[in-house]
Amino acid sequence: MRKLKVEPLTREAFAPFGDVIEASDDAEKHTINYGNTTRFHDLATINVTADGAKAGISIFRSAPLPMPIMIEVMEYHPKSSQAFVPLSARSYLVVVAPKGPFEARGMRAFLASGDQGVNYHAGTWHHFSLALEDISDFLVIDRIADDDNCVEYHLKASEQVTLEI
Amino acid sequence: MRKLKVEPLTREAFAPFGDVIEASDDAEKHTINYGNTTRFHDLATINVTADGAKAGISIFRSAPLPMPIMIEVMEYHPKSSQAFVPLSARSYLVVVAPKGPFEARGMRAFLASGDQGVNYHAGTWHHFSLALEDISDFLVIDRIADDDNCVEYHLKASEQVTLEI
Repeated sequence: MRKLKVEPLTREAFAPFGDVIEASDDAEKHTINYGNTTRFHDLATINVTADGAKAGISIFRSAPLPMPIMIEVMEYHPKSSQAFVPLSARSYLVVVAPKGPFEARGMRAFLASGDQGVNYHAGTWHHFSLALEDISDFLVIDRIADDDNCVEYHLKASEQVTLEI
Repeated sequence: MRKLKVEPLTREAFAPFGDVIEASDDAEKHTINYGNTTRFHDLATINVTADGAKAGISIFRSAPLPMPIMIEVMEYHPKSSQAFVPLSARSYLVVVAPKGPFEARGMRAFLASGDQGVNYHAGTWHHFSLALEDISDFLVIDRIADDDNCVEYHLKASEQVTLEI
């Protein structure tokens, strides 16, 4: 089985797939609250209200998968972005592939630190939350509606990969 | 100066002011991701797109105020909710007052734990981020627009309080 090398998560490397949500020096910054707060402003392109849906905040509590982690299924949300921000201050993995027909050779894997969130743009293929080490909570900002907004793809055996951290 | 007693933050006590964002057993829960994730679903009433604005995700990095904390200024956002979720896993303080003309006697103070966020409903008077112990990061979900959406009130000396933790 092919091994997919895990890369560090940077804004540049992740740009084709979405936003990295972090308090970086590259962000637009404002000093507010009488000097007591720095606002790292507007860190993600949120797109969650198509077809009259509402923006929602949820918490995902995810268990780590057994090692080595094998990628067998990917998904995307055609109508909306979906942001994940770690609340447990632990590293986690992010696996994505470009929009469009699923291409196994286009998969990329990133190691996010405990102070980096990600926002998948609408249509970006991604694996579900990949917690590491222990059960971990993520704040999720996504689209709340009753219609169908998740497309899954089950990888053929020849397309599956294990992650090489 | 009057002392305002700090109460524990609970969903019931905070309901007149907004939502408590936490992975509580009272939340609507869904098991997803092939059994690996529990989704604590739709934990806050988000209202951030009035007048064509967009939903945004920002990070606030706030320094603690000197003790004892004195409440001298309050604010509200007429057009939108504003959610704060702690990323530093540290307790913090939340000070609010009911919507409408500011009434100092209506102020309430709550101690939020490091795994509790709050979402202020539009119009709820609140103090800015009150980090405790150390500089702390909060994920903020609010309204991004160029128009004016913040009303401040500077408390008269006779209205000011110190917080009694």
